[in-house]
Amino acid sequence: MEIVNVELGDRAYPIYVGAGCLEDLGPRLAQTGGEKRMAVVTNSTVASLYLEPVTRTLTGAGFDPAVVQIPDGEEHKNLAWLAFVYDRLIDAGVDRGGSVVALGGGVVGDLAGFAAATYLRGIDLVQVPTTLLAQIDSSIGGKTGVNHPAGKNLLGAFKQPRFVLADVECLRTLPRREYVAGLAEVVKTGAILDAELFALLEAELPDILRQERDLLVRVVRRCCQLKALVVAEDETEGGYRAILNFGHTLGHAIESLTDYTTFLHGEAVAIGMVAAARVSQQLGFCDATTVRRLSTLVDRCGLPTEVPSDLEREALALAMRTDKKALGGSIKFVCLEGIGRTRFERLGCDEIVRYI
Amino acid sequence: MEIVNVELGDRAYPIYVGAGCLEDLGPRLAQTGGEKRMAVVTNSTVASLYLEPVTRTLTGAGFDPAVVQIPDGEEHKNLAWLAFVYDRLIDAGVDRGGSVVALGGGVVGDLAGFAAATYLRGIDLVQVPTTLLAQIDSSIGGKTGVNHPAGKNLLGAFKQPRFVLADVECLRTLPRREYVAGLAEVVKTGAILDAELFALLEAELPDILRQERDLLVRVVRRCCQLKALVVAEDETEGGYRAILNFGHTLGHAIESLTDYTTFLHGEAVAIGMVAAARVSQQLGFCDATTVRRLSTLVDRCGLPTEVPSDLEREALALAMRTDKKALGGSIKFVCLEGIGRTRFERLGCDEIVRYI
Repeated sequence: MEIVNVELGDRAYPIYVGAGCLEDLGPRLAQTGGEKRMAVVTNSTVASLYLEPVTRTLTGAGFDPAVVQIPDGEEHKNLAWLAFVYDRLIDAGVDRGGSVVALGGGVVGDLAGFAAATYLRGIDLVQVPTTLLAQIDSSIGGKTGVNHPAGKNLLGAFKQPRFVLADVECLRTLPRREYVAGLAEVVKTGAILDAELFALLEAELPDILRQERDLLVRVVRRCCQLKALVVAEDETEGGYRAILNFGHTLGHAIESLTDYTTFLHGEAVAIGMVAAARVSQQLGFCDATTVRRLSTLVDRCGLPTEVPSDLEREALALAMRTDKKALGGSIKFVCLEGIGRTRFERLGCDEIVRYI
Repeated sequence: MEIVNVELGDRAYPIYVGAGCLEDLGPRLAQTGGEKRMAVVTNSTVASLYLEPVTRTLTGAGFDPAVVQIPDGEEHKNLAWLAFVYDRLIDAGVDRGGSVVALGGGVVGDLAGFAAATYLRGIDLVQVPTTLLAQIDSSIGGKTGVNHPAGKNLLGAFKQPRFVLADVECLRTLPRREYVAGLAEVVKTGAILDAELFALLEAELPDILRQERDLLVRVVRRCCQLKALVVAEDETEGGYRAILNFGHTLGHAIESLTDYTTFLHGEAVAIGMVAAARVSQQLGFCDATTVRRLSTLVDRCGLPTEVPSDLEREALALAMRTDKKALGGSIKFVCLEGIGRTRFERLGCDEIVRYI
């Protein structure tokens, strides 16, 4: 098992990455000294796969877990289901010394994390991400929250977990399409922060696609390490952390315009990354080779690289302008200077869509 | 104007205490560098008294305040009205750089504070408390939250404001009964932390009751200072801060058993303090003089000192046991060793009610 430390002073915590390490959850939680009575928050799909082993390791370590099950799907990441989780935690008698284990993907992690951040003004949280996207991205860094009809993640809190436990074996049960969508964020991590990781992906993509165990542990660990460094630098997204938004400006606009039904998040980000690279090239920040390397790797993953032809440029610009990160119609856009190198550039939304 | 600093490292902030200082709100907020578009959260009663001057000072300082008005009353401190505040903040276009001014008593401060803590994962908060209780207690220390049908303040967050502005002139419009109830927390502050303040109250009570201006500024400032010291010592109530619960263990039980309709919070705390002093004496921690001084001062304020005869001891013990601070039926009880001196003692709920 590999350990990555997220250096956040008195909120520092470890990320455990391994193959088959789910069974360590109970003993690891016991080390934090939490109370017996605690809760596992999960969704129906994940519960059918992993609730039994998770309950077993927790019970074996002396815990008395209550199970809070929400339906599967982003549409349940809202205030109503948050209230449901609160109710269950209260019914279960989870106390100030208790903890919440978030077992699932990003939706479960965000919702359960927000509940843990605000139940009794905050109790311990443990993230057990079961999707690739959650393992390398959403479970790390403390962003939690729910959606509002007016926009995604408009309500939430920063809540650092006590630890993250990422078992790559869980990825075997992930639908192929979701696994591949998760790879988009892996590609992103390499593209913005680590040319070596990017080159590894280029060289070993077939083995990564077939989930070769040791390689997968290595890739997930490296992504966690890089995300942890960014988060430690800028915990509450005051500035530098915005580097992680590479590909997300347009990605969010595409997701929003297609009502979150056409593309998975990673797929929209894949399109957004290639577009952002093109914008960077047009502005003279990077060369054609950089754009080609990125778009080739994205394509080899089986991810889309082009903005759907039925999405109007004007509509995309408008969607970007209503993003919560837009200020007065302009956006702090993450440009590529080369593989592993970025720069921020404040761009108008119209300017961005002109170049994609 | 007096300034009390709450020393919380990078979350440190000043409390401004004065008579007639409400008009400084705009200029003070401008110093924090927040965006023009912000929101004032208040209730209907306070709005009719202070919304006009508050809007004037904010507009005068270049702000564009949206007003979010909730109904008056503790029964509105819940998730439904929190969602209402979120909706209004979104409608008003309050951004990450915007801020929330909580104008009112404890309910407004707690609800607006929780909204500010979680809207867009946290925006700036300014507390402008208009009740005595809020000025010396609830606006300081960062506790925010809402009630749940299962109990008070079960959902919430720690959110330190950018500053607190307490204008004692606002207390003139407070109903007499509420002002007197606020005095209970003033008495508490002296009883647990400051024999000199307690003696001042004993000596000057008539002038305090008639709200003699300079004296009131002095008393409010001293209470803020003492609370700030406790909070700086223990921001998230890990230990020492529990000293502030003096009188609250039984106080909460009384409020809960009478459905929050018979007593104001301060009145229930008044009874709880005298009872806690008696428990302390029975356990040999303090002498009869201490109990008498406390009960005399409470009585002179016009506050109740006795548990209503129709409340059964068993029911009180049960209510204490379901308090969120109870662990396995026992409570970290704040005992008095003398005026200005306390000790923690873990007591069974049955034990506590036996002595009152």
